Amino acid sequence: MPGPQARRTAPGEGERAGDARAAALRARAAEVRRATAGLAARLTPEDAMLQSMPDASPAKWHLGHTTWFFETFVLARAERTHRPFDPAYGYLFNSYYEALGPRQPRPERGLLSRPPLEEVLRYRAEVDARLDAALARARDADLLDVVELGIAHEEQHQELLLTDLKHAFSASPLRPAYAAAPPPPASGPAPRLAWLGHAGGRVELGAGAEGFAFDHERPRHAALVPPHALASRPVTCGEWLEFVAADGYRRPDLWMSEGWDAVRRHGWTAPLHWIPDRDGWLQFTLGGVRPLDPAEPVAHVSWYEADAYARFAGARLPTEAEWEAHAEVREGGDGTFAEDGRFHPAAATPGRGARQVLGDVWEWTASAYGPYPGYRPAAGALGEYNGKFMVGQQVLRGGSCASPRRHLRASYRNFFHPDARWQFTGVRLARDL
Amino acid sequence: MPGPQARRTAPGEGERAGDARAAALRARAAEVRRATAGLAARLTPEDAMLQSMPDASPAKWHLGHTTWFFETFVLARAERTHRPFDPAYGYLFNSYYEALGPRQPRPERGLLSRPPLEEVLRYRAEVDARLDAALARARDADLLDVVELGIAHEEQHQELLLTDLKHAFSASPLRPAYAAAPPPPASGPAPRLAWLGHAGGRVELGAGAEGFAFDHERPRHAALVPPHALASRPVTCGEWLEFVAADGYRRPDLWMSEGWDAVRRHGWTAPLHWIPDRDGWLQFTLGGVRPLDPAEPVAHVSWYEADAYARFAGARLPTEAEWEAHAEVREGGDGTFAEDGRFHPAAATPGRGARQVLGDVWEWTASAYGPYPGYRPAAGALGEYNGKFMVGQQVLRGGSCASPRRHLRASYRNFFHPDARWQFTGVRLARDL
Amino acid sequence: MPGPQARRTAPGEGERAGDARAAALRARAAEVRRATAGLAARLTPEDAMLQSMPDASPAKWHLGHTTWFFETFVLARAERTHRPFDPAYGYLFNSYYEALGPRQPRPERGLLSRPPLEEVLRYRAEVDARLDAALARARDADLLDVVELGIAHEEQHQELLLTDLKHAFSASPLRPAYAAAPPPPASGPAPRLAWLGHAGGRVELGAGAEGFAFDHERPRHAALVPPHALASRPVTCGEWLEFVAADGYRRPDLWMSEGWDAVRRHGWTAPLHWIPDRDGWLQFTLGGVRPLDPAEPVAHVSWYEADAYARFAGARLPTEAEWEAHAEVREGGDGTFAEDGRFHPAAATPGRGARQVLGDVWEWTASAYGPYPGYRPAAGALGEYNGKFMVGQQVLRGGSCASPRRHLRASYRNFFHPDARWQFTGVRLARDL
Amino acid sequence: MPGPQARRTAPGEGERAGDARAAALRARAAEVRRATAGLAARLTPEDAMLQSMPDASPAKWHLGHTTWFFETFVLARAERTHRPFDPAYGYLFNSYYEALGPRQPRPERGLLSRPPLEEVLRYRAEVDARLDAALARARDADLLDVVELGIAHEEQHQELLLTDLKHAFSASPLRPAYAAAPPPPASGPAPRLAWLGHAGGRVELGAGAEGFAFDHERPRHAALVPPHALASRPVTCGEWLEFVAADGYRRPDLWMSEGWDAVRRHGWTAPLHWIPDRDGWLQFTLGGVRPLDPAEPVAHVSWYEADAYARFAGARLPTEAEWEAHAEVREGGDGTFAEDGRFHPAAATPGRGARQVLGDVWEWTASAYGPYPGYRPAAGALGEYNGKFMVGQQVLRGGSCASPRRHLRASYRNFFHPDARWQFTGVRLARDL
Repeated sequence: MPGPQARRTAPGEGERAGDARAAALRARAAEVRRATAGLAARLTPEDAMLQSMPDASPAKWHLGHTTWFFETFVLARAERTHRPFDPAYGYLFNSYYEALGPRQPRPERGLLSRPPLEEVLRYRAEVDARLDAALARARDADLLDVVELGIAHEEQHQELLLTDLKHAFSASPLRPAYAAAPPPPASGPAPRLAWLGHAGGRVELGAGAEGFAFDHERPRHAALVPPHALASRPVTCGEWLEFVAADGYRRPDLWMSEGWDAVRRHGWTAPLHWIPDRDGWLQFTLGGVRPLDPAEPVAHVSWYEADAYARFAGARLPTEAEWEAHAEVREGGDGTFAEDGRFHPAAATPGRGARQVLGDVWEWTASAYGPYPGYRPAAGALGEYNGKFMVGQQVLRGGSCASPRRHLRASYRNFFHPDARWQFTGVRLARDL
Repeated sequence: MPGPQARRTAPGEGERAGDARAAALRARAAEVRRATAGLAARLTPEDAMLQSMPDASPAKWHLGHTTWFFETFVLARAERTHRPFDPAYGYLFNSYYEALGPRQPRPERGLLSRPPLEEVLRYRAEVDARLDAALARARDADLLDVVELGIAHEEQHQELLLTDLKHAFSASPLRPAYAAAPPPPASGPAPRLAWLGHAGGRVELGAGAEGFAFDHERPRHAALVPPHALASRPVTCGEWLEFVAADGYRRPDLWMSEGWDAVRRHGWTAPLHWIPDRDGWLQFTLGGVRPLDPAEPVAHVSWYEADAYARFAGARLPTEAEWEAHAEVREGGDGTFAEDGRFHPAAATPGRGARQVLGDVWEWTASAYGPYPGYRPAAGALGEYNGKFMVGQQVLRGGSCASPRRHLRASYRNFFHPDARWQFTGVRLARDL
Repeated sequence: MPGPQARRTAPGEGERAGDARAAALRARAAEVRRATAGLAARLTPEDAMLQSMPDASPAKWHLGHTTWFFETFVLARAERTHRPFDPAYGYLFNSYYEALGPRQPRPERGLLSRPPLEEVLRYRAEVDARLDAALARARDADLLDVVELGIAHEEQHQELLLTDLKHAFSASPLRPAYAAAPPPPASGPAPRLAWLGHAGGRVELGAGAEGFAFDHERPRHAALVPPHALASRPVTCGEWLEFVAADGYRRPDLWMSEGWDAVRRHGWTAPLHWIPDRDGWLQFTLGGVRPLDPAEPVAHVSWYEADAYARFAGARLPTEAEWEAHAEVREGGDGTFAEDGRFHPAAATPGRGARQVLGDVWEWTASAYGPYPGYRPAAGALGEYNGKFMVGQQVLRGGSCASPRRHLRASYRNFFHPDARWQFTGVRLARDL
Repeated sequence: MPGPQARRTAPGEGERAGDARAAALRARAAEVRRATAGLAARLTPEDAMLQSMPDASPAKWHLGHTTWFFETFVLARAERTHRPFDPAYGYLFNSYYEALGPRQPRPERGLLSRPPLEEVLRYRAEVDARLDAALARARDADLLDVVELGIAHEEQHQELLLTDLKHAFSASPLRPAYAAAPPPPASGPAPRLAWLGHAGGRVELGAGAEGFAFDHERPRHAALVPPHALASRPVTCGEWLEFVAADGYRRPDLWMSEGWDAVRRHGWTAPLHWIPDRDGWLQFTLGGVRPLDPAEPVAHVSWYEADAYARFAGARLPTEAEWEAHAEVREGGDGTFAEDGRFHPAAATPGRGARQVLGDVWEWTASAYGPYPGYRPAAGALGEYNGKFMVGQQVLRGGSCASPRRHLRASYRNFFHPDARWQFTGVRLARDL
């Protein structure tokens, strides 16, 4: 969320800018809220209750939680006489804000058969109406900052709704399809991997003062990078098959010590959602089971696997600073995003420079998640948004085929534990020059 | 299920008896199937998917499993050209029959959002129709034995549907009510406990050759019991309050060693579903939260607690043989059963002899669950029904307020692990004379 | 320990009997205490500290605990001005007597590097001297009862010292030998198994009023047994090899449900201490690794395995009453005991009637461990000796090659959980007639 | 270990330098090996076998492992006809080198009663003699690099021997003392904390090309730091008492999310080894239990606690670059080291600049452990030394009272998981300017 470094309306700029911003946010809020409901529209009430692991949440919970976020952080401030839709919802739909009191334990979100899905949709409708009314008259820049944060927050949960559902559906012996099947594998191979060089030296990263960004993207600051090169596209399934065939999952020398422990503990032999078949591999997708496409970016690999693959390939993972240095100058428009309705990464297309920088698959970096120099979390409960997760996780960049396009930018930082595999997580290689 | 000791039609008795039996079973099957559907009718699709612990199952699964039982063990034999409703259902709805292949892991039954509830109800309807047709022409005694077993099996799952649901609802912060609230506590105290003596010696227990009984109730056999007395009624909540007040949950001398471990591991301080309140105790029931009634039989205690309470009371638990010796001669008609729609035990009423022998609460016995002398499990997959659970569990007798009345009899044996608390499990004391 | 049913000196029998009993116990106490020290004499201080699992204890702890038992239950009563050797030892060496206060957690007994072994031996020496002095003047029958219990208790820990050590040594990659290697396998096969019949009916079991017995062996009482037969000798390793070869560890139909879970969870494919080898199987013994002798009784099998094997063999396990009915009339003198210094079962020798009834291997029974009718635990802390373990365990009979010969008798009851394998536990089959 | 960046003898420099280096290393090797044996000399064989948690190792194992290191990496290369002391020791004493084959599982090192301590000391003596002989003739720079690494490796295990032992002794109810008690608390308070400023900008960190350093300290490289200040001394026990008194362990807002989970899971209410007492706090030290000295640096806190304390204090933890920027210019000589035989941190003494930079307590940094730009692990098994641990851990700097003085330097990097508490780990605060 916007910390002290966030953009502020300059004094004296007047009401006009505030008006325009409020109007724009009102429209975007309505749009993003509709989009979430749209994603859930294909689900039965029972689908919407699925929770297949403690880290994932039911779709119904995502629907309720994002609504609770607007109700708690926006309506409670914006409405003169605020009354919550249901006082119990604070307990049910608070995710992790300690400052806001106790809450349903995360691993037990799947036990909420009540309220039923239709009631949660009524909750959404009422909050949407009240939010719209509030935004029709809102001018306070702080409040609008929170609205903007709420929109970004909702976009994050759109992605989680999809990836959590994919995990849950993959646990069903019926392997249900959420969407239409992705098109069959293209005939051709992926474009040849090229190395995009960088002379090294001082680079800048992080979000500038203008525009929305999460608190942890700020402040923009300088860093030093060595001479290095980045791959022109993510690692493909075809390349990963070579890793598998070369006993990549059986050679401890390729792995971090804890990665090797994870391989043995979980019995990993391939990325998540790969299914061995007589003639090779199938893949479970949000469109059901289909043959593996060697030209596609590999997805659903943990950081441990990404790191081991890079070592196998004689390369390494890029740092955040390296990644962002490339992303800024070559931000491509060739990615796959949630709006495409494909919900699966697509094979890279030929072209100059870095491809699929945004969209398709999140790209694990070599950087541990931590604060930028001078980082300040927001005050109050919203300060828990990112700051309290800054240990033990690795940064990912670029977004995925389940991310809304508007949600992404070069400075965007995502983070997961190094063993997480249920997101659309892939690999872009780097190497020293 | 009926083992080799089960009743068999005498040769030459003719078709008439077979006809009558088939007709009776056809009617009972229809009735019991309707009753199960009736229990589930109050549930939303989401309620029907709840699984709050590995030992419990979703209501939808109970609906599917009981149907699969009839389809697999009856229709597959009775229909000339049998085609399963859905070949995948064998995987989804097999409970534990190793002889019938792999199955959905028990702790993951709650992940079956598909098939949806309405589809499972269609499955029920089709199997019911085909079962009815099959029974219209069935005369084979072996097949009718299996139908009778299927009916008893369905009755068992009616009870589990209720108790599993109670556990799941109790895990919801909203504490939903499944049924109308039980009536408020009666004004009066429970009838005074009387001791019903037995001179000891040779007694007989187990089901005789006639009529339906599960395989483990046979053969009827003799046992020796010492001179002893049984309590005229189960232990009440009021009596249990004295145990709590006397630090019963804090005195290791009252407990089995593993019971004491359980007390500390789980932090037990009262029966399951008791809720401390400013002014005393509330109780979560299938009718919602209500005050504790001291005159009611205590329920939801583990064997460890039952055993510790008995020691506290200067008594002990009865053995199976003792229990059945009393039950046979004094089988009362004063119990509460599933048909009463109360779904909660009721306070004992005054009267001579043993009260609430059947119904209200299952009564833990001192007997470990094992085979009777000469026990033979059925052949084939149905031999897995009881025989493979004969270690590590304790026998309970008498049935509960969630048991169908017809399901119970003096020889009926139920069994659970000594730490189980989610059934309506209570205590009837015994002592040596 | 001797409960209320234990033998009591008849009034008027006079001092003479008390004198003789005291003298005899004084001699036996000295002897048994020496024997324990003898067993430990082959151990380095480091060996004596080994604890390879929570259920097992270090030899040093056994040495200290048995001493603490005499100090606490005998010296503290018998000495006019009793001062404990070290007040801290109550915490260190109490096993599980809740009535005597807190204690070193069982899984952390291996963390007691202090007191060093030599100090514990000094503790033994001092308590031995004081015990001897006390017994020189002791006449009180109650006190002598406790001395007798202390002797039996010490004998139990002699066996545990050996079996716990065997487990610990087997966990060392060096596979140390505790004793001289058992002689090489005899050339011949085991004697043919014969079935010893019993007409069934009323039998008596349990210890009579005279002589020492543990509380749980009393009262002697009657039970009914069906017509049945018992095997003339325990199941051999050779017979077990057939079970392994017939996929006995891969056929769920042979196993209790929880037994099958255990097979998969632990990856059992053979008895504990069997080691696969190029040419067959080796076995880890207290004399080191040596070839498996097919004529030997199989040892180190769990109750689950014993039960599955019996089903495989078309037989079953005997009940306690059946076992004891045979043991009483045919108590053989052909067993292997701790005094033999072999510490490993020996092949059966030909002979009439039941062979190896006492000694060689404990024999799992079909009986769950529980109280005999009319059982009363002793008063005070000694009441915790057996009574608080009477749930969840199975009875074993007969003793093993690690039991002192004097410790055993027909009425002796041992008990372990159904998955325990680290004792010398084997199988004698039974079947219905 | 020395990677490709390590110092290399310039061509043409001749044999003289090699001679001198070999002679110096020969002397140092002998000295450091003697020192390790000296640390172990106070231990009984039983003390030397203690393993109180999977992360810690018995002293005997440390003695064997460090010897195995020299035998495997030096003698096996240096001796013409190398024969290992005992072929089994490779299995027993390999720590984690996958390239060198299987090994005793880490959590089971405490099960090695054999070889006995005296045999391990013989192993040490023989390897020492052979090492000395080998070094008398060694001139190969690569081999000498490995000797130097072996010395540093041995020094690391000296510290671990002490900290692992402290943990093990603290688990004993007897709380044994390893060394003489530290002197009683000084009368005075700690010197006032001063803030040492840094203007920010480009700094250099890491080891230069000359002299020994571990591979992960190289290459020396530049980084940018913001304007900031570092505390002149570590946080004291007295300051930590204020954190405890202010409910620091009960305020989730001060903690990382995973830190708060750790607080609740482990029940942390104070640093490890603090013992509540009637009148305040005692502390378990390697000299036994003694009162807490408020003027001492706090030790045995996890990264989570260090981070929470810094937030409480309105400060933060320093990054590696910041820490090293200060350490280089102000490296103090006022620390407590293993050679002091105190084995406990000492109160800071007054003085200008940064105090206790080296020695006393390791200082947690804000930096996740990872590779420096351009990092290359060594080839072969020695490449596993550091490189495979570069995820999920946090860097610590400065060394402790259990570190040998020669072992430390400004560029030295240590790393542990954020929940580790059994090392002498403390806190030096930083803040932005």
